[in-house]
Amino acid sequence: MELPAEAIDRLLDCWPVGRLATLGPGGRPHLVPIVFARVGDLLWSPIDAKPKRAREPARVRHVRANPAACLLLDHYDADWRRLWWLRLDARARVVEPRDPAAEAALAAAVSALRAKYTGYAGVAVLRDPPLALALETRSVASWCAGRSAIPVR
Amino acid sequence: MELPAEAIDRLLDCWPVGRLATLGPGGRPHLVPIVFARVGDLLWSPIDAKPKRAREPARVRHVRANPAACLLLDHYDADWRRLWWLRLDARARVVEPRDPAAEAALAAAVSALRAKYTGYAGVAVLRDPPLALALETRSVASWCAGRSAIPVR
Repeated sequence: MELPAEAIDRLLDCWPVGRLATLGPGGRPHLVPIVFARVGDLLWSPIDAKPKRAREPARVRHVRANPAACLLLDHYDADWRRLWWLRLDARARVVEPRDPAAEAALAAAVSALRAKYTGYAGVAVLRDPPLALALETRSVASWCAGRSAIPVR
Repeated sequence: MELPAEAIDRLLDCWPVGRLATLGPGGRPHLVPIVFARVGDLLWSPIDAKPKRAREPARVRHVRANPAACLLLDHYDADWRRLWWLRLDARARVVEPRDPAAEAALAAAVSALRAKYTGYAGVAVLRDPPLALALETRSVASWCAGRSAIPVR
């Protein structure tokens, strides 16, 4: 069965991790786990831009070349009656930290990320406005093993 | 830092879930969580072929059209010092349940899956030889937040 709409809504706000697929060289699929926060219709994922790194992370380079993306939220459990997944087909774009047109949206994203993840208190990623990916959902699919699998948090 | 080779080896044998990216229509990335078991150089993931379903699952159709795949094993933890991921760029192929040339390999895969997952005792998927995906790794990348993130199981 599909996840109920309320569960999907809650997961997009609260679930802490997603696995992001983008298209790499030759159109090959590429995966990385991401954190994200929802603001309005967009999911925001900040990029930890290490100053020493010569190149941008793969997912940023990929999205610059091709916006096609897929994000999976899911729960694995040894009790298979508790399995569920939520898949978002999305278009991603790279939001530059100093883009004046994105300043307010990026500030809202940073606030949402800080509120969602206590981990940001201990790292420098959000000290300045970060480079970020913004994901716009095109379609949603979901599945759960049964009513007892629907996440309650 | 990267995961040590021994940790990668252990994860490929023991980690219970992976997120599989394949290429869907228009070359767009598509994600689904999978279970898998390693036999030799291949990772095997069985397909739960529901008799009532008119079409094969998306990942099977995708792999029939394009073998490019990516599998991500990872651990999310609210303590970000414990994060790690392991990414396999792979080529996938569909193994038919009645392919005489694959009979022995498929039987070994079914044994490995039964040994790895107690859940298979309660479901019919492996009652007969299943349709399966076999993933052949082309390259491996990994990351962990530090020595304390290296999974011990």
